[in-house]
Amino acid sequence: MLVLKKVLVANRGEIAVRIIRACHNLGLKAVAVYSTADKNSLHVQLADEAICIGPAEPNKSYLNIHEIIAAAEITQSDAIHPGYGFLSENEEFAKKCEDEKITFIGPQSHVIALMGEKSRARETMLKADVPVVPGGDTEFTDLTSGLAYAKKIDFPVMLKASAGGGGKGMRVIKSADVFAKEFGLAQSEAQHAFNDNHMYLEKYLPHPRHIEVQIIADQQGNVTAVGERDCTIQQHHQKVIEEAPAIALPEETRQKMFAVSVKAAKKIGYVGAGTMEFLLDDPKHFYFMEMNTRIQVEHPVSELTSGLDLVELQLLVAQGKTLPFKQERISANGFALECRINALTAGEIAGLHLPAGYGIRVDTGLYQGYVVPPNYDSMIAKIITFAPSRQKAITLMKNALDETVISGVSTNLDFLMQLLNESDYVENKTDINWLDKLTATI
Amino acid sequence: MLVLKKVLVANRGEIAVRIIRACHNLGLKAVAVYSTADKNSLHVQLADEAICIGPAEPNKSYLNIHEIIAAAEITQSDAIHPGYGFLSENEEFAKKCEDEKITFIGPQSHVIALMGEKSRARETMLKADVPVVPGGDTEFTDLTSGLAYAKKIDFPVMLKASAGGGGKGMRVIKSADVFAKEFGLAQSEAQHAFNDNHMYLEKYLPHPRHIEVQIIADQQGNVTAVGERDCTIQQHHQKVIEEAPAIALPEETRQKMFAVSVKAAKKIGYVGAGTMEFLLDDPKHFYFMEMNTRIQVEHPVSELTSGLDLVELQLLVAQGKTLPFKQERISANGFALECRINALTAGEIAGLHLPAGYGIRVDTGLYQGYVVPPNYDSMIAKIITFAPSRQKAITLMKNALDETVISGVSTNLDFLMQLLNESDYVENKTDINWLDKLTATI
Repeated sequence: MLVLKKVLVANRGEIAVRIIRACHNLGLKAVAVYSTADKNSLHVQLADEAICIGPAEPNKSYLNIHEIIAAAEITQSDAIHPGYGFLSENEEFAKKCEDEKITFIGPQSHVIALMGEKSRARETMLKADVPVVPGGDTEFTDLTSGLAYAKKIDFPVMLKASAGGGGKGMRVIKSADVFAKEFGLAQSEAQHAFNDNHMYLEKYLPHPRHIEVQIIADQQGNVTAVGERDCTIQQHHQKVIEEAPAIALPEETRQKMFAVSVKAAKKIGYVGAGTMEFLLDDPKHFYFMEMNTRIQVEHPVSELTSGLDLVELQLLVAQGKTLPFKQERISANGFALECRINALTAGEIAGLHLPAGYGIRVDTGLYQGYVVPPNYDSMIAKIITFAPSRQKAITLMKNALDETVISGVSTNLDFLMQLLNESDYVENKTDINWLDKLTATI
Repeated sequence: MLVLKKVLVANRGEIAVRIIRACHNLGLKAVAVYSTADKNSLHVQLADEAICIGPAEPNKSYLNIHEIIAAAEITQSDAIHPGYGFLSENEEFAKKCEDEKITFIGPQSHVIALMGEKSRARETMLKADVPVVPGGDTEFTDLTSGLAYAKKIDFPVMLKASAGGGGKGMRVIKSADVFAKEFGLAQSEAQHAFNDNHMYLEKYLPHPRHIEVQIIADQQGNVTAVGERDCTIQQHHQKVIEEAPAIALPEETRQKMFAVSVKAAKKIGYVGAGTMEFLLDDPKHFYFMEMNTRIQVEHPVSELTSGLDLVELQLLVAQGKTLPFKQERISANGFALECRINALTAGEIAGLHLPAGYGIRVDTGLYQGYVVPPNYDSMIAKIITFAPSRQKAITLMKNALDETVISGVSTNLDFLMQLLNESDYVENKTDINWLDKLTATI
């Protein structure tokens, strides 16, 4: 069995802090890398060693494969944890680690590549009996073929231009009797916009929720579904609030979702922590969207409801350890809620008070006097609450947000509070378009 | 059923913060009281209202019954939570609340009185079949009576002078054959020191552990043992590190300890959160020491292992709610460890970084710029770790302490780290005298 001694953390901010703590809890040394903009960062201060990998621009530092591999070699790190974002799903980076005999904390590069290509991932999932959104696999230019295809995948359908983008040539068609008219309009719009009249059809999901399954897999072929998360509350495709478990999910559907996720992960020889993302159309039907082959921002909600340290498990399975539990599913206990705290401006954190105590977890790289640089993702902290019920977790979150003081930069604290008070949110009457619609009207 | 709206928190520091948060999580308003030394305290900032009750000296503010009752009346608070220390076990204060029709968050004043008097508490426990340290109930001056009594409670015994103090006239006697000699020496020592030769005998416990049972009781007569804590690591009778569960306790003994605790609490009509403190002599034998009729400093370790919010439960049962679980015992999940962070000097907190993240909870009133006043208990924060095992909880604690930065005042952080590295501590080979012996030699 491989025994790691030193792990280079190829990331910044709260996730770098999270990973460094997990390394220390396993007795591993942690090496931080940082751009010049991050030299005073908490992750640099908490690491055992820190090495500058370039200027503030991400492509010259946190995305600079050459510099990061060099940093690992200079510090004699025997593994690299990529965190999320940046190089975490970069096939070339994972391959480079493999070539250099540095343990990449994640699946093999060819698995990253497989899941990274939408069409290959879709095909793979279909073969593993994972439902995908029906349609999308055939192009056509004539009405007859289109209508036949629409009837095959059943109405309502979403008509899209193959060359499309920005909503041009896109139409929701509810029934066969309006198909001819809508097809004509959409196709001429596509022709006009892209000089291309190829169209394709997908099943239209009117009010989908975003539900995802956290899996963890070891090198011995054991795969466990650690639980699901509901990440329906999104703004411009960015998750804002995440929950576990997903209360919209009937137990039967949950079990089916876990089963197909585990089966698919086994089929592709997955190792490490990963997430299968689904759209939930109605309580019984879900469709695969994509697999994220890395730890996710919202992993703490699954940690609180499962009692498992997912980052520690990543580090353990990377060393060849067998998962310390046998079941294919970990049952959820309680309810966890995460709010992403974003800085809307850069600048120095002049005053800081973060919530704490019973049922509260905060993952952050913030400290009083820290300067939020303008170069990176706006998320500066995650507040996670854990309680016996969703209602109680929401109450704890509202009080936690109320207590939080972050001065010196603008934040989305007020926005989050407003969301938590929306009756649709409280009653879970939302879909993935809900927040964009809401913010278009307020 | 009584419905509370506003709770006055008659305390300061971390426990006041803890209680205010619990009030808010139940939708209750919280009123802070403070001495002039505490006007910038976190508990004052988090409360909905705050009222000054006097100067820094505790007896003029936090122990000032008149001022606190007046503050409750002025703010129209319908309840008072006393926290721990100060007036929390003051019978007169509880009685005054009863007279003024202010709900006292705790048991009735006559129950506080009963448990507050050592001899009455002991007698009550004996009647409820709770084991107490054998002996101590008979005085004698002659050797024959002494020897007979010693044989009755069995060797080893502790001989003590009735008028005693400071160890004078105190002798551990291991067997009957040395009784005459030791009795003579001790009695003449007592005569010399106190001009009184009355002696008494107690069973001697050579290496006792401090184990306590957390109970919660409602007004309907339901009592539940929420779990036990091991608080063996004490310095000068002050707890330093607390754990849950107590790994020294065999399951059979644990069950018996829970059973007698629940029975005793029922017998005295106990309502609220309370703690039965025991000495564990050997894995099968334990003896009642005292009952604390209030929330304790170390309650978070029980909260983490039980999943219950004990302060919230205090507030609920005070309103007449029935406990939301039927069993007389809550089973423990995982392992929790608490270290008390003490300030060894007063002064301004110039720099502050507290640990956070997976498995970490910090209860504190600290913030950067806060001035620790010289007037109160030295405890400024509690760091609590929660993990699947004791060993892992210790590892998390060491890393949490390592990460903690509290500058501007001296603290016991290094001392705690040293303790956690002691092999006797790690192997749980300790008793209540262990730390005092250790610190006498280092």
